[in-house]
Amino acid sequence: MEKIRVGVIGLGARGDYLVDLLLTMDDILVTAVCDVYQDRVDRNAEKVEKAQGQKPLGATDYRELIAAKACDAAVVVTGWEKHVEIGIALMEAGIAVGMEVGGAYSVADCWSLIEAYERTGTPFMFLENCNYGRYELLVLNMVEMGLFGDVVHCSGGYMHDLRTEVLYGRENRHYRLKNYLERNCHNYPTHDLGPIAQVMKLGRGNRILYLTSMASSAKGLNDFAVLHENVDPALRTAHFAQGDVVVTSMMCENGSTITLKLDTTLPRPYSRGFTVEGTRGMYQEDGNFVYLDTDFTEADHFDWKKNWDNADKYLEKYEHPVWKKFLNDGVRGGHGGMDYLVYDDFFMALREGRPMPIDVYDAALLMSITPLSAESIKGNSRTVEVPDFFAGRNQKK
Amino acid sequence: MEKIRVGVIGLGARGDYLVDLLLTMDDILVTAVCDVYQDRVDRNAEKVEKAQGQKPLGATDYRELIAAKACDAAVVVTGWEKHVEIGIALMEAGIAVGMEVGGAYSVADCWSLIEAYERTGTPFMFLENCNYGRYELLVLNMVEMGLFGDVVHCSGGYMHDLRTEVLYGRENRHYRLKNYLERNCHNYPTHDLGPIAQVMKLGRGNRILYLTSMASSAKGLNDFAVLHENVDPALRTAHFAQGDVVVTSMMCENGSTITLKLDTTLPRPYSRGFTVEGTRGMYQEDGNFVYLDTDFTEADHFDWKKNWDNADKYLEKYEHPVWKKFLNDGVRGGHGGMDYLVYDDFFMALREGRPMPIDVYDAALLMSITPLSAESIKGNSRTVEVPDFFAGRNQKK
Repeated sequence: MEKIRVGVIGLGARGDYLVDLLLTMDDILVTAVCDVYQDRVDRNAEKVEKAQGQKPLGATDYRELIAAKACDAAVVVTGWEKHVEIGIALMEAGIAVGMEVGGAYSVADCWSLIEAYERTGTPFMFLENCNYGRYELLVLNMVEMGLFGDVVHCSGGYMHDLRTEVLYGRENRHYRLKNYLERNCHNYPTHDLGPIAQVMKLGRGNRILYLTSMASSAKGLNDFAVLHENVDPALRTAHFAQGDVVVTSMMCENGSTITLKLDTTLPRPYSRGFTVEGTRGMYQEDGNFVYLDTDFTEADHFDWKKNWDNADKYLEKYEHPVWKKFLNDGVRGGHGGMDYLVYDDFFMALREGRPMPIDVYDAALLMSITPLSAESIKGNSRTVEVPDFFAGRNQKK
Repeated sequence: MEKIRVGVIGLGARGDYLVDLLLTMDDILVTAVCDVYQDRVDRNAEKVEKAQGQKPLGATDYRELIAAKACDAAVVVTGWEKHVEIGIALMEAGIAVGMEVGGAYSVADCWSLIEAYERTGTPFMFLENCNYGRYELLVLNMVEMGLFGDVVHCSGGYMHDLRTEVLYGRENRHYRLKNYLERNCHNYPTHDLGPIAQVMKLGRGNRILYLTSMASSAKGLNDFAVLHENVDPALRTAHFAQGDVVVTSMMCENGSTITLKLDTTLPRPYSRGFTVEGTRGMYQEDGNFVYLDTDFTEADHFDWKKNWDNADKYLEKYEHPVWKKFLNDGVRGGHGGMDYLVYDDFFMALREGRPMPIDVYDAALLMSITPLSAESIKGNSRTVEVPDFFAGRNQKK
């Protein structure tokens, strides 16, 4: 079988790490590395040459990579604001796209992605690794087996203390700083909504009708800057547009609801707060517990430690087939294996010519939450309709 | 010191239990018991006579209790829908009111309570026991000491599997069944919002400006009725108006935000999900943990078990004075002591003639969330303004 020639566009911390991951994968050749910063290109080109014995194309403009026809597929790992432009250019050039996650800057951008896909037919995959998380897939499996009954509510969040990442953004050439200064929205909605969309079959018989979003004041970053003298003193009093906590509620066509929380500029332990509630059972990431009607009695209700951290017990019986195989073959790659799984699924679908597991329609929905939440926040949390991005895919069936 | 003569109006499960609690308290005489059901009156009158050696007035109409001038203070423990009517009638009669919690049926009812109080000057206390919870007060103390920095977001919920209570409502003569059949709202917002209001100084320099609310479909009760043959078969297909999960977001004048969740008709362990997030620290009830910037490093972020269930460590240093004294004197009463504390505070304030700790203005705000959330839900989660109930109290200062 011929190896897939892959380009990596964007070589910050995550791109750098992904080059390493790709170099461990079978049937993949990294044939191009690209970043606006030459030092990042050089470092990664060297790594690739050392591992593969062949120098990849190095470029500081993604258009060089396209012009050189240097790859069959490219993964987009740049700052969020370039994802759509680069994704569309790649599709136009017939280069299969693996797009890393992030929110969109406008709903129009989401439609542009869909239009480019429908115009070109170039394969497009949205690389939401959390859809491949072990517990996310355990829960998906249990839901599909009917163990939770009807799912009526899900919640999740991107709850990750990013204060140093944001505030040292200039030093580290990181795109988050600019975003936190200028935008107020759920700026990173896909790690939480992705696995929920999977459970709730969004775009596969169900969809989101409308949302409301509310943002708190922005105090966390200024306060951190005041207390840490290594932070650029200008940031002590800078106006950050991004509220510390953004809560977004969504209504689905089937009457189920979803709540998402962005929480990235206050002190806290990491959590994606993945929670799935059905008529017969639930899962909650905070505490990592499954609660099934069949396994508990009302007398247990008030003793939260009784079922705390019991999910591993359910793994024994309900481990998702994808993870069973993965554990059998040997877990690889970072973030608990999710990264390997999502990239592997992308390349396998490409190779087999089958539909992408997380496609451009899913991407449009997940990414659209960012501009839609911004619109709701700006209008005192007014109700904002969520477009039906799935019409094109539904027509094909 | 003369004993306070207390009447108890409403003798369902909670009223029954409260009579027992009152009988253990010093300087209190239970002089009247009232319920629409004679058997409840008889049972409680007997209990009181046995404990105090004196028969209390027994009444099936609260107006008899008022007419007989049988008490100095009365606690209202009826079904939610009678709280306001009885509270106002008591104030008009000059009988001090302790009102048990529940949501209002209209915003106008909230204003009526305030007007009755301002007209009569009769003492009025809202008996929100959760404001006296040990961890709620620990967190309040830590917030007031500045350990959490500026508080920017709080969340909480009434998450309590009440399916049997609701569905056996006819057999148990419980008011919840009717409410779940007819209303769709956050029907019990005070256990979650009460302690948050305390932390966020609502009505004491801060207030809620607006809210949005979203309700999921109602599937939990029907499904439970289908699976349990002892439940009235009519409830298998009855239309329940009350959504299984209701999420309400609120914007405060100082830019902080609040999220509340009602979750009472799906399988789950009990939690009020009390969570307080500030610029320098947080507390979360799910996991019972405190997270302070000063006590953790970024390396700890991903190891959630590292700080899980650590709140007791903070009790050693930051126990609230109210609880220090309570532990010293000996914890009494149910619900971990909260019930004793809130009743004791009510009677002490009465005796000393000082302002009520949770007064009629606080009650109006807490109770108003119910009709306001109903209005938002009915309007596809539209933004609804929250009245400034505190004007009257502010004028007095």
